[in-house]
Amino acid sequence: MLENKNNEKTRISELGEFGLIDHLTKQFSIKNTSTIKGIGDDAAVIVSEKNNQIVITTDLLVEGVHFDLSYMPLKHLGYKAVIVNLSDVFAMNAKATQITVSVAVSNRFPVEALEELYAGIATAAKIYEIDVVGGDTTSSTTGLLLSITAIGQAPKEAIVYREGAKENDLLVVTGDLGAAYMGLQVLEREKEVFKVNPQSQPDLDAYTYLIERQLKPEARKDIPKLLKELKVTPTSMIDISDGLSSEILHLCKNSEVGCNVYEDKIPLDPQVISACEEFNLDSTMVALSGGEDYELLFTVGTEDFPKIKGNPHLTIIGHITHKNEGTHLITRANTKIPLVARGWNSMEESSD
Amino acid sequence: MLENKNNEKTRISELGEFGLIDHLTKQFSIKNTSTIKGIGDDAAVIVSEKNNQIVITTDLLVEGVHFDLSYMPLKHLGYKAVIVNLSDVFAMNAKATQITVSVAVSNRFPVEALEELYAGIATAAKIYEIDVVGGDTTSSTTGLLLSITAIGQAPKEAIVYREGAKENDLLVVTGDLGAAYMGLQVLEREKEVFKVNPQSQPDLDAYTYLIERQLKPEARKDIPKLLKELKVTPTSMIDISDGLSSEILHLCKNSEVGCNVYEDKIPLDPQVISACEEFNLDSTMVALSGGEDYELLFTVGTEDFPKIKGNPHLTIIGHITHKNEGTHLITRANTKIPLVARGWNSMEESSD
Repeated sequence: MLENKNNEKTRISELGEFGLIDHLTKQFSIKNTSTIKGIGDDAAVIVSEKNNQIVITTDLLVEGVHFDLSYMPLKHLGYKAVIVNLSDVFAMNAKATQITVSVAVSNRFPVEALEELYAGIATAAKIYEIDVVGGDTTSSTTGLLLSITAIGQAPKEAIVYREGAKENDLLVVTGDLGAAYMGLQVLEREKEVFKVNPQSQPDLDAYTYLIERQLKPEARKDIPKLLKELKVTPTSMIDISDGLSSEILHLCKNSEVGCNVYEDKIPLDPQVISACEEFNLDSTMVALSGGEDYELLFTVGTEDFPKIKGNPHLTIIGHITHKNEGTHLITRANTKIPLVARGWNSMEESSD
Repeated sequence: MLENKNNEKTRISELGEFGLIDHLTKQFSIKNTSTIKGIGDDAAVIVSEKNNQIVITTDLLVEGVHFDLSYMPLKHLGYKAVIVNLSDVFAMNAKATQITVSVAVSNRFPVEALEELYAGIATAAKIYEIDVVGGDTTSSTTGLLLSITAIGQAPKEAIVYREGAKENDLLVVTGDLGAAYMGLQVLEREKEVFKVNPQSQPDLDAYTYLIERQLKPEARKDIPKLLKELKVTPTSMIDISDGLSSEILHLCKNSEVGCNVYEDKIPLDPQVISACEEFNLDSTMVALSGGEDYELLFTVGTEDFPKIKGNPHLTIIGHITHKNEGTHLITRANTKIPLVARGWNSMEESSD
């Protein structure tokens, strides 16, 4: 469907390892005052400003496991790989400042393919105002692999952990859920159609939001800022890209609490609802277990309710209970079902 | 030759991704006061002590490209993967404090194999007094891949970059060179012998130092300490694991200077000299281009000569010249040869 229209092919070996790194990274300039030295020495050098603490997170993306290049253009992949990591920085309520990017690539990829990948990384770095300060480029025996480490910083008192949720706290989620998973379903269906009939012209207009959430997700850079403006410090926070239900369970386990989540409160985009009907999937199950929604889940004390009430970015989906009460979903029919990590139906493994 | 004697086999899928990470990382405890939060949240949290600057470096090691599991036991691989990264931290004249470890692994590896790998990582972390603060474990379609990010810190005035070398500065190298490359030659020869005759009992006594330098190298944690004790701040410094000659060229390019390196000053272990004779290789070429010697190259002003003179860890191998004079090796026969990145003879690519 989405092809690389660049027909020039330069073999990686023509540039050599150092030449390739120089070629791919020359576009990166330093924007953050916390970056003292970027690419070009044995290590990057950064400083924590105003006695901030530093947060560090890392993620590995493997071809054939985390992404499929038959519908994921390389530029989008580069962009998404950055987003995946930044989401974890924002989940600490911190500002993202730097990343390092390591790529292992087989020689079936020409230099131009890596240029596409790095163009996506550069676009994300620009939009999210982060510096690319290091990395490594090496050959692989097969496929493409990306390893990104993201660095951020925040004052000690602003950093929010997974533990800290207290009984009666409100459980809040950002944005809406399930769209990335439904985008993947649409793309996989189109891939099958394309295999049978390469001349088919897919009409994806009804799924634009879903496909964008899958191919070009955004991380919630705005949430740490919004929380600061609202003068709200969550009692706990977590990134939910591995699936809402599994991350609610992580948060409750780390905080040693239980929770009640209300099915009718889970935020869904209308495209998710209609696509779920079309694919005969339960939209709640998709929202709870689909994954790849780069949204944040957090808890706040009830005294903060007036500050977050009605905010279009935030939805209260439940509340924290005593540990002994367990972790439950209250369905629309008002029945109480235990929350399980992969939805309560058998569901195929998502690609997270 | 070196086999995993552990016969129990547990499939990775039996534990699941989160179970696997928990299982592999439960042995890691926090030792550094600069580590606020290690494994177990969206990101690790660290602080820079005494207003130190933070250094960050990352490296990717790919099976079949950077290591061969037929003679590299997994425990050694884990250890070496940490060393590779720490060497870059020490090359900034910084103290290493934390690492993150990401592993992509195919399902041909049982959980016990990953335990071996992590045992090597844990051993290195203990010896080098660093904390393992994060990482990612994922499946790969083939082989094993390790991505490690190392973090360190040092006062601003202590950090040493590749640029900064000045005309007349002395060029100093730590330890001795070429042993890791010769260790690889010995191991590859034994692998060939083993293929022909699996019953053969190799006698490797004459090569113990070489094999240790290849399979269980150490990084020069002692050098930043030694330089502090000697009250020497190098004008420039670089890790030479990619090969002495290529790194001299990097240092000279970054510092915009030239240099003269004296062949008869290059430090060689007696085992390197005798193995080079046996393999019919030029020991100078091996020392200049073999690579994988986790040693440091640095420059100091001539006023520091009395402080470093005669130190058993340090060898003065040349001096810095004006950029226009170029970068040369002065041979034992007193002829001047341009330094080239891969030795002046055609040499097979080293495995770095």
